[in-house]
Amino acid sequence: MKKRLGPAERLYPMPCALVVGGTMEKADTLAVAWINVMSSTPPTIAMGLRESRKTLELMRETGTFTVNLPSASLVREVDYCGIASGHSADKFAATGLRLVPSAVVPTPIIEQCPFNIECRISGEHEVGSYRVIFGEIVETHADEAILAEDDAVDIAALDPLVYIPGLREYHRLGGKVADAYTVGRELLAE
Amino acid sequence: MKKRLGPAERLYPMPCALVVGGTMEKADTLAVAWINVMSSTPPTIAMGLRESRKTLELMRETGTFTVNLPSASLVREVDYCGIASGHSADKFAATGLRLVPSAVVPTPIIEQCPFNIECRISGEHEVGSYRVIFGEIVETHADEAILAEDDAVDIAALDPLVYIPGLREYHRLGGKVADAYTVGRELLAE
Repeated sequence: MKKRLGPAERLYPMPCALVVGGTMEKADTLAVAWINVMSSTPPTIAMGLRESRKTLELMRETGTFTVNLPSASLVREVDYCGIASGHSADKFAATGLRLVPSAVVPTPIIEQCPFNIECRISGEHEVGSYRVIFGEIVETHADEAILAEDDAVDIAALDPLVYIPGLREYHRLGGKVADAYTVGRELLAE
Repeated sequence: MKKRLGPAERLYPMPCALVVGGTMEKADTLAVAWINVMSSTPPTIAMGLRESRKTLELMRETGTFTVNLPSASLVREVDYCGIASGHSADKFAATGLRLVPSAVVPTPIIEQCPFNIECRISGEHEVGSYRVIFGEIVETHADEAILAEDDAVDIAALDPLVYIPGLREYHRLGGKVADAYTVGRELLAE
């Protein structure tokens, strides 16, 4: 039996990223769950942000940002970056998260996050009091410790943090269920 | 030590949804990992789709779509819906997935998916050969079996399928790491 719950901004689960705006000299970061890839040609990420965000202000100054994926061990630092405001706090000083230069864009990446994505802002779309920012992915980085021999990401080593809206919980990723583009072929043959 | 991997459409992890377009009489569905909430005022979802998708054609006819979250037990059906094309196959007949009427929009929801979202298309944004479709969330539904007493979603009962790009693997969600808006407060006090 299904129950109507009303309109609500829910999807299960969501990723959990630290988005950085600014430069090595002046930067801010915030925790973003409303983010995902939207295109592969060109490779593009989109995220929904409130207009008032300090990080958004810094992103617009350079036209760039970085997306940094934390492991579950960084949960305290990530949660802090979602609670504190860059208008009043230096989140890097408070958390110990260190910035290192990117390869292509002026906005730095976070050293302790094992997967990092450099983006150039390629579009904006207004949705009520939110701005959806589109970023073309111009480079990605991974810690060698989370890479298998063929440079594929070892997802157990990355140990990404996952966000559950509504419940407001951080989870780990669980075990493998099946291979995609494979398990469904049984039904194709029928 | 970080290694440059080049521009690639990666984010870990992604959700895994069955998006339905059309009506009770004529519908199609496809598996979408490039989807997430982008705004809460109004509650809005966005997803990236190739222009050639049959489901997109049907979505535009009614101006509506539904997002249906499968449990891990539906992995075979979900994968099939990502492999087969609605131009040549009846995915509902092949999988046994059943459509039931929505409450607000003409596009039906999938009965076997324990969480369902009804959307009205509220915008489009072109990104290369992809279209980002924005949908205002007008209703959500959950199976009573996945609801706790306060109507909060029991995430272990929902048992959502999670997608890992690159590796092309479906995973389960793992255990809880911490409460959001709580664990980071330790750093606020310092």
